[in-house]
Amino acid sequence: MHVDVYIDARPKRYYLTSGSKLLFAAHISTRTMADTPTESDPDPHEEIMRATYRALREHGYADLTIQRIADEYGKSTAAVHYHYDTKDDLLTAFLDYILDQFKDTVHEVETTDPEQRLELLLDKLLVDPTDHQDLLVAILEMRSQVPYNDQFRERFQQNDEYVQYLLRTVIDQGIKTGVFDDVDTDHVAQALMIIVDGARTRAVVFDEEDSLETARQTAAEYVTAALVADD
Amino acid sequence: MHVDVYIDARPKRYYLTSGSKLLFAAHISTRTMADTPTESDPDPHEEIMRATYRALREHGYADLTIQRIADEYGKSTAAVHYHYDTKDDLLTAFLDYILDQFKDTVHEVETTDPEQRLELLLDKLLVDPTDHQDLLVAILEMRSQVPYNDQFRERFQQNDEYVQYLLRTVIDQGIKTGVFDDVDTDHVAQALMIIVDGARTRAVVFDEEDSLETARQTAAEYVTAALVADD
Repeated sequence: MHVDVYIDARPKRYYLTSGSKLLFAAHISTRTMADTPTESDPDPHEEIMRATYRALREHGYADLTIQRIADEYGKSTAAVHYHYDTKDDLLTAFLDYILDQFKDTVHEVETTDPEQRLELLLDKLLVDPTDHQDLLVAILEMRSQVPYNDQFRERFQQNDEYVQYLLRTVIDQGIKTGVFDDVDTDHVAQALMIIVDGARTRAVVFDEEDSLETARQTAAEYVTAALVADD
Repeated sequence: MHVDVYIDARPKRYYLTSGSKLLFAAHISTRTMADTPTESDPDPHEEIMRATYRALREHGYADLTIQRIADEYGKSTAAVHYHYDTKDDLLTAFLDYILDQFKDTVHEVETTDPEQRLELLLDKLLVDPTDHQDLLVAILEMRSQVPYNDQFRERFQQNDEYVQYLLRTVIDQGIKTGVFDDVDTDHVAQALMIIVDGARTRAVVFDEEDSLETARQTAAEYVTAALVADD
């Protein structure tokens, strides 16, 4: 398959295409664009993102202010506003930052065995968030604002498209090598995302320690039934 | 099985128990307590609930005020406050109202065939909400406030316990009559609720018309794999 990469500098997005099919579109993070930070010259974007994370954990989305992020950053609100015009701009960048972190952990997965890769991907989606309950709370609040906030909508859609793309790729690979049945890849990827999003919502609403664990088991059962049952 | 019903009048709750096991606890709705409304004397609770629904659809949760509900009600804010002290009290009653509506539609299901009953129950959970996108938006906003609002948390937990109880009952019935495999009923009910909640969240965040449809198919596949696969 021939893949083209287009970089659109103005809105800082890149596109992967194959023929006329759009494979993937993404925002290029400020982190990628920044110079490699050194100890004497830390990356302000990285520092503000970390400060945002700490402020979100402490105050929650509804009570988050630029002042509170600035307090965590250790500088003035003007220093924050120098990089981000509005709180929504900053939180949109934060959603990109989280996706970048997720991408980094996915890139650490070195196995090319489709079954193992799918298992590890589902672990990243359903086991790793166990340690980040506060982040799940903040993300659900931002998700609930999507009907009123186009920037949030766009970022959540991009994140979802990226994860579905990863799922489709590994399932397609498994079908090609004969370890998975020849299924509707789109449907299976969507079904797995429904399970992931259900678990994340329930982990917040019902404060259930075992929501993610139950969902991980459900995803494993679904994968077995959908992909490896018809032998 | 012997089932006891306790009614605790003060907080208006009832409890169904079997031996030491709590089967079900629920708030008794104002609608149940009110006299049967007549045309000359409409039930104010019912009217305020309907006004709340219209106000939520129009303004969303974040911009909902007692004034806007009063406008829909066609009376003063004092007339609303006479029945509900705070906006949270009113919205908590609204969550009870929605559950009551759901219970009414479930009671309409007359079949006792477990397979058919489970299918119809999943339709109620995943097909019927298609017509109520605005309500799904408002409910996700209220869900995202659960970490900060104990009244909401209690109601969402009660609703979830009730629906899981219905799912467990029909699955148990199917196991007893031999149409379903002898599975972990708790796990299957929880797995189905993960799929339901994932679909409802995605219907809001991704504005997908087909989120609920995909989830309905996923639930059907899961039911087949978990309950009727081992023949």
